[in-house]
Order: sequence, then C-alpha cells, then structure tokens
Amino acid sequence: MTDVASTVVTELSAVLSSAQIVTGPRTESNRRDQSEGTLSGEPLAVVFPASTEEVAAVVTIAAAHRIPIVPQGARTGLAGGANAIDGAIVLTTTRLKKILVVDAANQTATVQAGVRTIALARAAEAVDLFYPPDPGSWRASTIGGNVATNAGGMLCVKYGVTGNFVRQLTVVLADGSIVHTGQRTIKGVAGYNLTALLVGSEGTLGIITEITVGLLPKPGSPSGVAATFANTADALAAANTIVAGDRRPSVLEFLDGACIAAINAFDPASILPAGAGALLLVQSDQIGQAHDDVEAYAEVLRAAGADEVTIAHDAESLEKLMSARRLLHPAVQAVRGGCLNEDITVPRSQLGALLLGLAEISRELDVPISTGGHIGDGNLHPVIGYDPEVPAEIDKAHAAFARVIDLAISLDGSASGEHGIGVLKRAHLDDELGPVLRDLQLRVKAAFDPYSILNPGKKL
Amino acid sequence: MTDVASTVVTELSAVLSSAQIVTGPRTESNRRDQSEGTLSGEPLAVVFPASTEEVAAVVTIAAAHRIPIVPQGARTGLAGGANAIDGAIVLTTTRLKKILVVDAANQTATVQAGVRTIALARAAEAVDLFYPPDPGSWRASTIGGNVATNAGGMLCVKYGVTGNFVRQLTVVLADGSIVHTGQRTIKGVAGYNLTALLVGSEGTLGIITEITVGLLPKPGSPSGVAATFANTADALAAANTIVAGDRRPSVLEFLDGACIAAINAFDPASILPAGAGALLLVQSDQIGQAHDDVEAYAEVLRAAGADEVTIAHDAESLEKLMSARRLLHPAVQAVRGGCLNEDITVPRSQLGALLLGLAEISRELDVPISTGGHIGDGNLHPVIGYDPEVPAEIDKAHAAFARVIDLAISLDGSASGEHGIGVLKRAHLDDELGPVLRDLQLRVKAAFDPYSILNPGKKL
Repeated sequence: MTDVASTVVTELSAVLSSAQIVTGPRTESNRRDQSEGTLSGEPLAVVFPASTEEVAAVVTIAAAHRIPIVPQGARTGLAGGANAIDGAIVLTTTRLKKILVVDAANQTATVQAGVRTIALARAAEAVDLFYPPDPGSWRASTIGGNVATNAGGMLCVKYGVTGNFVRQLTVVLADGSIVHTGQRTIKGVAGYNLTALLVGSEGTLGIITEITVGLLPKPGSPSGVAATFANTADALAAANTIVAGDRRPSVLEFLDGACIAAINAFDPASILPAGAGALLLVQSDQIGQAHDDVEAYAEVLRAAGADEVTIAHDAESLEKLMSARRLLHPAVQAVRGGCLNEDITVPRSQLGALLLGLAEISRELDVPISTGGHIGDGNLHPVIGYDPEVPAEIDKAHAAFARVIDLAISLDGSASGEHGIGVLKRAHLDDELGPVLRDLQLRVKAAFDPYSILNPGKKL
Repeated sequence: MTDVASTVVTELSAVLSSAQIVTGPRTESNRRDQSEGTLSGEPLAVVFPASTEEVAAVVTIAAAHRIPIVPQGARTGLAGGANAIDGAIVLTTTRLKKILVVDAANQTATVQAGVRTIALARAAEAVDLFYPPDPGSWRASTIGGNVATNAGGMLCVKYGVTGNFVRQLTVVLADGSIVHTGQRTIKGVAGYNLTALLVGSEGTLGIITEITVGLLPKPGSPSGVAATFANTADALAAANTIVAGDRRPSVLEFLDGACIAAINAFDPASILPAGAGALLLVQSDQIGQAHDDVEAYAEVLRAAGADEVTIAHDAESLEKLMSARRLLHPAVQAVRGGCLNEDITVPRSQLGALLLGLAEISRELDVPISTGGHIGDGNLHPVIGYDPEVPAEIDKAHAAFARVIDLAISLDGSASGEHGIGVLKRAHLDDELGPVLRDLQLRVKAAFDPYSILNPGKKL
C-alpha cells in the first residue's frame, strides 16, 4: 500500500468502523458489475457507509486527497458503470437499506439508496400503492443503482422509466456537502431540475443516498397473451397495430426465433412452440378492463397472422407465459458460453429497418445475434453470442457489438435505452452527441465535480 | 442611443431584415408579460428571428458585446420571466411558428418554439393523437414558453406537466452555438439529461428554438361532474377520496366560496349556486369508461356531503360546467380591480393546513384571498385582491403574497408549481433552496452561460 493509500485508510477508520472498510484481496468481490468485456481496476478500499453523513465523510476524505470514488449498488449493471478503478475508493450502498417513509396520503416513498427495488415495490404494495419500474434485475438491484442508470423494464411501455418516478434526491456532492434536490410536491419549478439531471448520471455528478419516489394507485390484476409468428416482420406489424390503438398495454415484449430456440434448448419446461419465427407478449393491467383488453389484443394478433395465441387471465398461467421472457439472457448465454448484451433504442418507426440490419450484421460477420426486448418503446436487447474459449469469436462479437450501435445511431437511435453508458459504450457516445453537446456535458460535469473524482472515466 | 447600442443594431441589421428589428418607443408592447407588480426595463431592441440560425446570429452578436438577451414567447407568463431588461435584446419567437413534423408512426411532433400550444394540440388531434398539457393560456401561449416554464394545466393531474412530454430540444447556447439535446427515441440515457435541465429554466441556460414532444393516443370523450359543498374541508375530503381511489380523473379542480361569489358576480350566465362554500370539478376521459367513472365520482361526492351534484356526459353541458373555472382570474380581478396571482404547491396531505393558513392570512391582514386550482396535484392559485387606486391595499396585498409563499414553504411546499419564478418570486427562492443548492445551481448556470447574458436576473 502506498503512503497516500495508508493515510486514506487511516482517515477512513476515523469515520467508519473496521467492519465498514475492506482492503486488499477481499475487495475482489466488489470490482465488477455484470457487464462482459469491460475493464475494472484494483481499488484502494471498499467502504460500506450506513448513513448520508458517513457517505459525506468518505467523500470529504477522497476530495482532500483527490482520490476517485466509485459508487456501487448491487452490481447488477450491464455497462461497467460500477466497475472499480485502480486506486479508487469503492463506495457501496449495501448498508444504506432503510425504507424511511411510505407516505400513503401523498403516494410517495422515501428510501435509502441501497434498498432493493423489489423491497420498495413490496413496501408500496403493502399500502395498496404501486412502484412500476421493473428492471430485469429488480429482485437484486438497488433503487440507487436504478436511479443512477435511469433503469427501465417491461412495464415502462405504459408507466415510464425510473426517472419518471423520482421526486427528490439526497445527494453528497464532490466536496462532501449534502444537498436535497427536488420537491416533496407533485409539481414544482423552483430552481433548475437537478433531480432529472442526476437521474442517469451514473455516479459522475454526485452520490445519491436517499430517494423519494412517487407511487401510483395499485393497478388491476394483469391479463396477458402470447402469440407466435412465422417471422419478425409480422410480429412487428402486430405490435405497431397495438401501439396505435386505444388500449394501452402494460407490457409489450418481443423475442425473435433465435431467442425462442435458445430458451427451448435451455428450459425443458418451455412451452414456446419449436420453430416459431417470433413471439409477442402483451399484458394489460387496466382496472376493470384487463380481461377485455387482452381479448381485444388476441384478436389483433390473430388478424395480424399469429400462429399460436395463448391467453392467460390468472396469475399462474400468466407467469408461465412470462417466464420464457425472463430466461432470455441465461438461455442465449448458454448457447455459446459467452455473450455481449446490447441495449439499443430507435424510434419505433425504425424497428423494421433495425431488425433487417441486425440480420445483415449477423450474416456478414457470421455471429449469432438473438434479439428480444421492449418492442413497445423501441428498446431492444440484441444478444451477441460467442465462445469465450475462441479468441476469434470474441473479436467478432466485439466487432458486431460496435456495428449494432452504429446501426442504431444511423437509424436516429441511441446506444443505450436503459442500461447506461458505463465504460462499455463510452467510445460510441461522441458519435451520438457531437462535439458541442459533448463539451457542454463536460462543463456540467465540471460544475458538479471540478477535480473529477466522482466515478471518472464513466458515462462521458 | 449609445454607441454600443447603435453598433449592435447595425450588426443585427446585417443578419435580420429591418422588419425583424424594432427599437425605441415601439418596443413598449414587448416589455412585459401578464404578471402584476413586476419590474421591467427598456430594451435596446426587440428582434423577431425566423429560424434557429437567425437566433444563433443574434446571440452571437449579443455575446460579442456581453449584452443581455431576454427570450419572449406570447408574454402570457405570470412571473415576469419574459419582462424586458434595460439595454437588453428582447428575442421574441413570434416568427418561429412552423409545425415542422407530426410523426404519427412515432407519436411525436416537432415544432418551432413560437408555435402556439393550441396549434400543437390541434395538429396532434388531426392525426388522432393527443398533446395533453393545457395551461390556462394555451390558446395564446407558445410551446416554447410552456417548455421554458414547465407549464402545467388542468389535465396534468392525470398526464403530467409540459416537461413530461418533451423529448428533444434545439437550443442556441450563450455563445451562439446550436445543440440538439435529447433523443428521438422514447427511452435514452446517452449523456446527461440536459433536456430536463433546460425545461423550466426560463431562458437562463439557452434559447429553445425547436421542440419535439411525445404524443399519446387520443383519449375518450370526457364526462364530468361538478359538486358544491358547504365548506372547503368537505370538498377537500371528497377530493382525497377520489385521489386515493382506483379511477384516475383527468381533471380534479377546486374553487372556494370567494371564487364562486366572484364568478357569479362577474358572469350573469353562471350556473354556480349562490352561497356555496366550495366547488369540485372532476372529469374522466378514459376510453370506454368515462361515463362509468363519472357516475362513480358523483357517488363519492354525494357520500362526502355534496349539496348539488351536476353530471355532464356531452360536450356542451361539460363546457358549461367548466366555463366557470376558466373565469376564475378575470372574475376575481374584477372584484377589486387588481390582483396578485399565487402558484403555490404543497404535498397533498398539507392541503387542509394550507387552506386554514390562507384563511388566517386573509383575516389577519384583512385582504381578500380567493383560492382555486389543481387540488388533485396540490397546486393551488390563491388570488389576492386589491384596489390599485389605494396604496395601502397594494402594500397589504404584497405582504399577503409573501406570507402565502412562506406558508407553502413551511408546509414542505414550493413558491411555484407551474408559473415559474421569473422576477416575481426570486426573493423567496433562497429560502426554498438553501445556500449549498443555490450555489450548485449558480455553477450550472455558469457552465451554460459564463457571462450571464441569458435572461439575467430571472429564475435564480
């Protein structure tokens, strides 16, 4: 350990208990999120503060020594945003796990950043309220991580993403000071909307320690329908008809034929028909109307040429329909052993061109690409498979990864809809933003973090 | 005219036609918005650019001479945000009135900033889509002004405020450069969310020239119900029951007894019952369900002790119910000749305490306060009456104005829900933000506008 490092650890020991500081090889388990192919470093220490004040104390020490800080939630991220940096303090929110207030009268909840998403959702449910954002990792992920990446999920097609629910943040700034952004009220225009700026900033503008979210009245029991199609074009046409219609689906998901084949190979209990070219999953949770909505969706799907249409009006059969979608990533990963997960998004009118372009990249580079995701809001997750034992496959997978992002941007889209930029997609960001906007973003970063100690090298 | 001023006008003449530049006494009509009791100045010139490039050319000239620029829409603002400043260039968006694209497939519209809100709403309707935000001035206001103030309206209780619909902005920065923020896609996390930061920034961070908004499928034909109550407490209890229920109202408005009396005195055709202590207006526009929703609301209102309950299932009778609400400001203004309009917002659970506190301020200072507004989202508009010919009444009205804002802040609320800070409420902002957050906001301002030429003295 260098002199500076041991000074920093001594100073940390003055503000945290020894159980809250980990150094050396034991930091190994806190070095990476779930992204593949991203770099990570060896931190000076991993710390586990249990209050906003302890976070502020840690940041004050880091600021004094100009040492980088990497905030970390459950490390379920897919872009390397929470990966450790050499010599940094990794600040995990594991101990910030108090649900502080569930305010039924105002339909809000205030929680510490390390509270798991599922725990927040359950706390809302307990008072007949509803926290909609449901990222794939919601059982493990923290709400702080969701806010830091502006995480999405399947229900976002109807309800919007995490940021749409964030009302207030308690944030430790780069100098260790504590601010409360936003309002307790539903509306409010006093000052600039720094809350919205911090959402999705991936720990580069401040460290979020407490979050107040707005909640909704509990929706109805969902009904759902799954439909298979001979090809992706027919499935997309059916999805477009649903989006243009009067009824607002709470879920509108897509799997292509490669996903279906992978899921069937992975899960012996799969009920997906072998050889299907595409699958749509549609739900409604409209109170008093979900049953009718889904019957109407089934009609639309049949009229659009669906082969098999399966309706589920009870929780158990709906769970069976949806379980296939949840297996997407492990199933596709199992095909080759390794995979790179995309998170591209395009205007919905470009989804047809996107699917054609993905097929072309797969063919030209001879890499397997399985595509599923949130077709209702134009955010798809192509998964590029490779054999991690074969260097040539790894190289081809990375080449395909870059081509897919270029394709999305060429279709007026973006490299990331909900996973974040992290370290994985930084190289593509400049293409997307252009130099004037990039410089403006850097000036905003500097206004928050003049010495660039907050998660440097991420996001921008 | 000073030397600098005539140099600037000469330079402006090189980039704009003479019809696009107004100087001298003819600038009079562009000096103020609709706020009362706010200061304004004498501008160097008023310019009428017709493209983003012309706006950029004007800003470049202003930047070279460090001359302030005041962006101005339809001047329907209520906080002085668009008021002229001595020696400034007032940049009006009157000629930026092109509807550029209505993209039905992607459910978006792209318009220039000077397009009137109603024109955007009508353009959406023409392709069976829906732009919900409906500020009171929507027939006259520009969408640029709505974005700059993050304007609300009656439908926001269900659909959210202007900012919830903004996807992309074309913005001229303080140095005359042009940036495009946001994404054409529904979701997107590439870079910081500068779009959300610019929304509500009242022209202090950049000049918005083009806006892309998301649109929704057209809602159902609304049904509505009006109910009178003996007192405000009963009306509030009824509103709370509706908010906590399963059905989401598209409108949930409130008028107190003073508003009702003023409207009845102002409008001989008023159908409001004389002597009523409070009124609630509730609508539903849920497709296929509005009729049932409103019948259910009527039951709730009756059970909560409503005296008169009037249901409207057709457009004509609904318009009659709603017209009273629209007369609120002119009617209350007519009582004394002058009025100050508040825009306070509190957590919904504090509405009872707010109404009691308003009555107390009215009694203690002996000023008439009539309160109506968006009870469904906790944003009320107390209107303080005064006789503009009586200086003592003017003073008392301003004293009451400040007390009302202090009251809202003491109830965890805010000075402004949807009108903006402008110059009217700047004095109250520091109390609300506190010094650390205020300094952070100033650093953000400096990152965008280092020489503070963009609408200086407003918002912060």
